[in-house]
Amino acid sequence: MKNIFIFPLRIYIEDTDYGQVVYHANYLKFFERARSEWAEQAGMGIVAQQELRVCFPVRYAHVDFIKPAKVGQQCEVVSRIKEARKASLIYDQYLRLSATPDTILCKAEIKIACVDQHFQPRRLPESFMNFITENKRDD
Amino acid sequence: MKNIFIFPLRIYIEDTDYGQVVYHANYLKFFERARSEWAEQAGMGIVAQQELRVCFPVRYAHVDFIKPAKVGQQCEVVSRIKEARKASLIYDQYLRLSATPDTILCKAEIKIACVDQHFQPRRLPESFMNFITENKRDD
Amino acid sequence: MKNIFIFPLRIYIEDTDYGQVVYHANYLKFFERARSEWAEQAGMGIVAQQELRVCFPVRYAHVDFIKPAKVGQQCEVVSRIKEARKASLIYDQYLRLSATPDTILCKAEIKIACVDQHFQPRRLPESFMNFITENKRDD
Amino acid sequence: MKNIFIFPLRIYIEDTDYGQVVYHANYLKFFERARSEWAEQAGMGIVAQQELRVCFPVRYAHVDFIKPAKVGQQCEVVSRIKEARKASLIYDQYLRLSATPDTILCKAEIKIACVDQHFQPRRLPESFMNFITENKRDD
Repeated sequence: MKNIFIFPLRIYIEDTDYGQVVYHANYLKFFERARSEWAEQAGMGIVAQQELRVCFPVRYAHVDFIKPAKVGQQCEVVSRIKEARKASLIYDQYLRLSATPDTILCKAEIKIACVDQHFQPRRLPESFMNFITENKRDD
Repeated sequence: MKNIFIFPLRIYIEDTDYGQVVYHANYLKFFERARSEWAEQAGMGIVAQQELRVCFPVRYAHVDFIKPAKVGQQCEVVSRIKEARKASLIYDQYLRLSATPDTILCKAEIKIACVDQHFQPRRLPESFMNFITENKRDD
Repeated sequence: MKNIFIFPLRIYIEDTDYGQVVYHANYLKFFERARSEWAEQAGMGIVAQQELRVCFPVRYAHVDFIKPAKVGQQCEVVSRIKEARKASLIYDQYLRLSATPDTILCKAEIKIACVDQHFQPRRLPESFMNFITENKRDD
Repeated sequence: MKNIFIFPLRIYIEDTDYGQVVYHANYLKFFERARSEWAEQAGMGIVAQQELRVCFPVRYAHVDFIKPAKVGQQCEVVSRIKEARKASLIYDQYLRLSATPDTILCKAEIKIACVDQHFQPRRLPESFMNFITENKRDD
């Protein structure tokens, strides 16, 4: 496995708006789905988060809306961990068309923190950190 | 005050979809906003719910989508408590255009339950029941 | 193929609310995704709808919220066309847990109409009708 | 009138997620509501946009999530046009608590473009530009 995670999704009517393309805020939902699914595969899904009493709020999101995604299109979120710190992660994520993977529709740099149930910073769980480090090594 | 609550809202781009009108599921959000605001005014808002450790999940929603609401339109949710039981309420709610109040866009019958934090049924808090009964009497 | 369509999905954070379970309006989004995906497979997806200048607004939705869906759960939408008329379809749809398919979380009867770009009723496209009828015959 | 627009809103259950605070993507919806309402007051609302065949897609959004907004809280979006170019606008927007206006929950720099119905760049309509310039002068 590499330090990259690919998550497929189709654009549905719920995702679109009056402009007949994806509503801008919804790209952030696609990126969250991909991060959540990746965390799940890394053994750091919701059940694990509840056991360890941590959660991963978003600290910042820098999003570029490059080309509108249209209803019915089959897409992929490509995610990469750009930087892993003690209590935070920075992701590079983008959405591309499955049929023409060079067509990037939206990209973002997103920082998430690791916090406890009182929103206080916590070290990233060791197992999660190991998962990330091992994947990095395989690059 | 009467047994009716009127809640104004404008339709924004976030509410619409590819068909250039309000996405059908979003009418349920408008109805929730109105119920929440009414509960707030009845002293049964979120803070009170947390203190009493109750919440009000929706049991069923029967929604008729009559005429599409369009972006930019100024609307009103009209809410009425149709029936109050020990541990549940049935609301009649509809969305109309503010400028032409006879134009009903969407209407629903919605049943909410009163439950504790383990989703077990609970009697509606007495103060809330009194608020509802007094308003009924004023009709 | 049978007159039933099964659509898998996982519950993500975007789908949940303050009560830590799926926000009630979002079940309608899950049902829409499933109908859209089914239409796509029936050759009546968005591109075909645009060519034929039809769309399928929801006329009514009767939704029962039975048991809350939780974040991280792997689920399935099961869809069946209950009734096909000239210019409308009635769907039976429900959401169940993939791991324990007897656990039904939410179910709905949903009527969609077939309309042109001015929201006027239109006969369902013949190819779509044939697809539905053939599937019925296989039941 | 000043070069600042204040838009009040309350946080409802629809806005929250599993973490019991506002879902991060939804702050972008709040900012959109405020920009849309401002455009409406500037005579550049949806009807005017349709007549002039322009729309205002978001080009980028740099969002900082500072402090979580909670359900039931009364808030305000404060918006300012930081820079007006020929075919784009850069907004500074933030969300604060109405009761304690120094408490900033989320802030963003958001660039919108002016495009025609084929997503090609267009000059901002003159009346809108005049509105913005006059407000700037009053600062």
